[in-house]
Amino acid sequence: MSATMDAHIAPVELPKAYRLLNHGPTVLVSSRHDGVDDVMSAAWACALDFAPPKVTVVIDKATRTRGLVEGSGHFVLQVPTFAQLQLTYDVGNLSLADAPDKLARCGVSTFEAPGFDVPLVEGCSAWLVCKVLPEPHNQQAYDLFIGEVVGAWADTRVFRNGHWEFESAGPAFRSLHYIAGGTFYAIGDQALARTE
Amino acid sequence: MSATMDAHIAPVELPKAYRLLNHGPTVLVSSRHDGVDDVMSAAWACALDFAPPKVTVVIDKATRTRGLVEGSGHFVLQVPTFAQLQLTYDVGNLSLADAPDKLARCGVSTFEAPGFDVPLVEGCSAWLVCKVLPEPHNQQAYDLFIGEVVGAWADTRVFRNGHWEFESAGPAFRSLHYIAGGTFYAIGDQALARTE
Repeated sequence: MSATMDAHIAPVELPKAYRLLNHGPTVLVSSRHDGVDDVMSAAWACALDFAPPKVTVVIDKATRTRGLVEGSGHFVLQVPTFAQLQLTYDVGNLSLADAPDKLARCGVSTFEAPGFDVPLVEGCSAWLVCKVLPEPHNQQAYDLFIGEVVGAWADTRVFRNGHWEFESAGPAFRSLHYIAGGTFYAIGDQALARTE
Repeated sequence: MSATMDAHIAPVELPKAYRLLNHGPTVLVSSRHDGVDDVMSAAWACALDFAPPKVTVVIDKATRTRGLVEGSGHFVLQVPTFAQLQLTYDVGNLSLADAPDKLARCGVSTFEAPGFDVPLVEGCSAWLVCKVLPEPHNQQAYDLFIGEVVGAWADTRVFRNGHWEFESAGPAFRSLHYIAGGTFYAIGDQALARTE
């Protein structure tokens, strides 16, 4: 299931990694521990700091991902595209505990970035590899995990030079923003405020 | 500056309050303490739990809002509309410490909901009144505040029966999703996953 990095994928400098999440997309959370990979979706992920970049993500105790993240101390947040709408819904509604072939059934293929032993989901627009900053109280009381971003990449067809380029990338690259019950919104068009 | 609630504003049942934030909009954070009101914008706000609903928001120590929230134990997250693009940028870039007339200069008017002594910003599409759940370590180390939602309202022209209705509401009601440097995206169109 693992492949090499696509030619369109380029590193994002860490101080700009927050921009990959700043518009509030629903993300995929991937993780690996003891030879097991899982991928789930999460609408409750958010940037927390600029440099070093940090993020928060809520990972319920009922998920298989929870144990993998606690066991490995790492997780990946990645931004799925409009083309991955059904995949994004499906990985949030099928548990690896119930379906050992979950990833194949949901159409998930993964690859690795050099130097990081974590699964990255093919076809996403951006990836943030995160190291858990252990906060046992947050994790236990709120299912809230804090991670420091230690590697970031984006597909240069939709994010380059530190900026999203949704308009030129075409509709299949738009980010997804989940509400409930299978209802998502795609991100729309750019609007600029006066900054003088 | 205070007015009564607009006829279009209706309560949102608390177990559905998370839906107001689930698509990751940039929010306005308002607060009141000792007769001082402030409003700032925040892209780093997120749902944390369903019932009772909880949220997270990052409030930097350099903001005037920080002291008001710590002093009062309350804040409001509200979802600004596309019509408030410039206001949303401006309240994030002018400090009440530098401009005592910040709210007037930024075009902010506020009103109150019965029973809550917090300022709500007129013209937004949704409001969540939150009580701080004190977590001193998170607040000090990460500027991260956790709040329990104790009241929620929405403009029924864009959110009703527990659902956003962006398409029918028209472009002025779209939510805003900030990136950096004055660049926002408006939320786009709805897309439905198969839920069988």
